[in-house]
Amino acid sequence: MHIDKLAVIGVGLIGTSCALALRAASAVSHVVGVGRSQANLDRAEARGAIDTGVLCNGPWAQEVADADLVLIAIPVAQYRGVLTALADVVTERVVITDAGSTKQDVVLTARETLKKCLSRFVPGHPIAGSERSGAEAGDASLYVGRQVILTPLPETSASAFALVADFWTACGARVARLDPARHDHILAAVSHLPHLLASALVAELASRQDSAEYFGNAGSGFRDFTRIAAAPPEMWRDIALANRDALLKELTAYRTALDALALCIEHGDTGALHGMLSRAAEARRQWSETAGGIAAGTPAR
Amino acid sequence: MHIDKLAVIGVGLIGTSCALALRAASAVSHVVGVGRSQANLDRAEARGAIDTGVLCNGPWAQEVADADLVLIAIPVAQYRGVLTALADVVTERVVITDAGSTKQDVVLTARETLKKCLSRFVPGHPIAGSERSGAEAGDASLYVGRQVILTPLPETSASAFALVADFWTACGARVARLDPARHDHILAAVSHLPHLLASALVAELASRQDSAEYFGNAGSGFRDFTRIAAAPPEMWRDIALANRDALLKELTAYRTALDALALCIEHGDTGALHGMLSRAAEARRQWSETAGGIAAGTPAR
Repeated sequence: MHIDKLAVIGVGLIGTSCALALRAASAVSHVVGVGRSQANLDRAEARGAIDTGVLCNGPWAQEVADADLVLIAIPVAQYRGVLTALADVVTERVVITDAGSTKQDVVLTARETLKKCLSRFVPGHPIAGSERSGAEAGDASLYVGRQVILTPLPETSASAFALVADFWTACGARVARLDPARHDHILAAVSHLPHLLASALVAELASRQDSAEYFGNAGSGFRDFTRIAAAPPEMWRDIALANRDALLKELTAYRTALDALALCIEHGDTGALHGMLSRAAEARRQWSETAGGIAAGTPAR
Repeated sequence: MHIDKLAVIGVGLIGTSCALALRAASAVSHVVGVGRSQANLDRAEARGAIDTGVLCNGPWAQEVADADLVLIAIPVAQYRGVLTALADVVTERVVITDAGSTKQDVVLTARETLKKCLSRFVPGHPIAGSERSGAEAGDASLYVGRQVILTPLPETSASAFALVADFWTACGARVARLDPARHDHILAAVSHLPHLLASALVAELASRQDSAEYFGNAGSGFRDFTRIAAAPPEMWRDIALANRDALLKELTAYRTALDALALCIEHGDTGALHGMLSRAAEARRQWSETAGGIAAGTPAR
């Protein structure tokens, strides 16, 4: 696998890490980065992630029109304008993919904007990240051993799918395939819900007059449980709203589980409480042992 | 600070780590370990944590009667028998402390059992741990930079308090002091509640017919959020029941926060959702920057 020209729309954590990974694998010749601020583009260039930086408020689309692969790595809420601009300029051989955390809304936007390029669009989502952001946070090993979910459309061409799968494989990831709706349901449960649960706890504690005493006595369990709460609020707000229906369904299931838990504790139901904790501990240990790459990855702070 | 004879009741993660830390600091001469299984006592001895191992179903109390310091590091629900046995045999100079995660129930049990030894009892709680357990998990650096909360009684002698504070300082910890009720309220919010929230999520997902597909697409956010769910169920069941009232209060506050969050998402209240996520991200980042020792500690898996 070799890409002559890669365009990365959004030189944040996700986009910069892809570029750095391809560089490390000698799988790319030229990388164009499109970004919101010159400072971040300069950082991406200084780190060797991109060769050319273009601001997104200028004529950026011309610069990526002849790329082999365009990776969209910006918040999902900003896709419409980018996809519309791409549809106008790119040649027929350009493959487009993305790294957005939700897929049904992305597919909908792509259908409305990409028109003749639709068959060359391969929606994707790398299950990797960090609470850090920006080009500075880019890491060539971010995707090593991690799962990337591709959610092709019925129209997606086999060669476009193969190129994107090879691209992620070159980044060190495992590639899986899911239906967009199934993706959104699963991610609501294992990613979007935990994120909101952690944020809700921290926000609730922070709202207390004596919050300093709570935070001052929090330990490593709290640290790991709440790590994701430090992630960019704008991005997670958009994810929650984009995946609203699936997320509300998960939130309802979880609140029902909490109601049952509160009853157990209130009534001192030792057996039921122990049962729930045992099932959780067993499942978590099993996951940790089988999830290989993820479990063995370097925990972020 | 030097302890001639240390007795550790319970040679699990907490007790073994203390013994190893004191050894590393050359702050102890002889360590007696009291345990439930010969295999675990043997592991603790093989690791150099203890010199002598005694089974808790034999005449163990005689072996610790002349210790300088007795550390109780077993589940809180098992304290009554241990404290009763200690009260019968220990000499008047023996200082007793513990590492239990709840303090009001421990103080109550101590008042009922320790009698003339009560002034030599210093209730304590190291804010450190891991989802791992047993002598094998013991780690001389577990307490480095971590907080240990001592909750002395009005009767506690100043010299007993000083010895226990020195003991934890020698293990590398920072020592703080709290009222037992305040301790239980704070820990309910920053430790016991997050634990149950993580376990409830994992148990709920594990109960689904297609749980494998959920776990198979979970990433590092899920890994860190749920790490604590792998901890011993017996221990956390006891903590939840021992700290029932404070925990129910926190659970109610949290469920109210989740109800508000669900409304935000349902109604697409972008501003309120962004506000909550921003307050959480800001508070979490601030905590991470100021919590020094905890934030900088090696994240567990």
